Amino acid sequence: MNTTPRLPRLIEVRKNVLKQNDLLARALRERYREAGVFVVSIVSSPGSGKTTLLEKTLTQFRFECRVAALVGDLATDNDAARLARTEVPVKQITTGTVCHLEAAMIEHALEGWNLAALDCLFIENVGNLVCPSSYDLGEDLRLTLMSVTEGEDKPLKYPTIFNTADAAVITKIDLAAAVEFDSKAAYQNIQSVRPGMQVFELSAKSGQGMDEWLQFLRRMKEE
Amino acid sequence: MNTTPRLPRLIEVRKNVLKQNDLLARALRERYREAGVFVVSIVSSPGSGKTTLLEKTLTQFRFECRVAALVGDLATDNDAARLARTEVPVKQITTGTVCHLEAAMIEHALEGWNLAALDCLFIENVGNLVCPSSYDLGEDLRLTLMSVTEGEDKPLKYPTIFNTADAAVITKIDLAAAVEFDSKAAYQNIQSVRPGMQVFELSAKSGQGMDEWLQFLRRMKEE
Repeated sequence: MNTTPRLPRLIEVRKNVLKQNDLLARALRERYREAGVFVVSIVSSPGSGKTTLLEKTLTQFRFECRVAALVGDLATDNDAARLARTEVPVKQITTGTVCHLEAAMIEHALEGWNLAALDCLFIENVGNLVCPSSYDLGEDLRLTLMSVTEGEDKPLKYPTIFNTADAAVITKIDLAAAVEFDSKAAYQNIQSVRPGMQVFELSAKSGQGMDEWLQFLRRMKEE
Repeated sequence: MNTTPRLPRLIEVRKNVLKQNDLLARALRERYREAGVFVVSIVSSPGSGKTTLLEKTLTQFRFECRVAALVGDLATDNDAARLARTEVPVKQITTGTVCHLEAAMIEHALEGWNLAALDCLFIENVGNLVCPSSYDLGEDLRLTLMSVTEGEDKPLKYPTIFNTADAAVITKIDLAAAVEFDSKAAYQNIQSVRPGMQVFELSAKSGQGMDEWLQFLRRMKEE
């Protein structure tokens, strides 16, 4: 029933690119550690609610610590403009046609920023549930978001991105009833792909589940 | 405010891959034409409702013409299993870690199928609003879906995929009120990226807008 692709050449070059990225990410991780900054990256499909969750998170965190954000997108700086309302330093990374963020883009975006003056840095990836999984950004914590409207099967269909994440966040739970979301099935699917992974259910819009989420971030930051 | 990526090597190899793909896609297009089969491809984010729309479309079309479907996914053959319930020939293309379908995968998947015995072939791409845009599959009609839950700004943030499509479909309009979807803004954003593009609004779940959608497909098929 299945057919498999045959793309040896592109895959070989990608391996080299990934190797270069891993080296840069390692250097970034070292810089973050030396500067004492806790770095969180967020990946999801387009429209899962990364920016809304980040907006609410920054609004709270800016009273607790020195926080900043980098946001990736193919085009537009809409997200940076939205997040700038939180009065936190925000920089947009516009990738053009590149479907994910890479360590080199982060390094470039951080030029002119004093990392030591930060406690916490959030990185919002391009909306893509496939490609960002392969690119280490040196982050301490990687979160994969999925909204209830996308369906419970997403972890099974996009296993790599859930497998490379440290925690999963199910967003837009204010819509759970309207889309007949089966929370138990989603949870089981996440666990089958990455056993033991912590899962949060929240709505950045209604505020439901936000306290547990913020507490989790605070705890991870202190560890 | 913006930073740009620097990845000359990968981009060069991608160009060669795309060139090879274009040649194969041209050959596929010729085969489709000779066989008299109308080919429609569907792209969107994960969870926008490609499979549900396709399921409803196949259920109707199988009474009108000889129809079949190819469905792409990284992992699982869930979609093929779902679509098989429509009693239409369906084949799953499992891409592994490849984030999009390519002409070579379509060619491979069609082995053993007699195209001349078909009137209409649907191809569902991997859920990804970025990468599939660059890969011609030889299709007659490419549709980009976005659901109301993803937000009105998606055409601006993922312009290439809307630019390479022949029509846009806004899905899940049964949820429009719940997410305060601004239909006019979405329409304007689509038009600003691709002026004159036809836009459908529908809910495969409630059936709203499905008649216009099916009529459009019938009309395009006859042209």
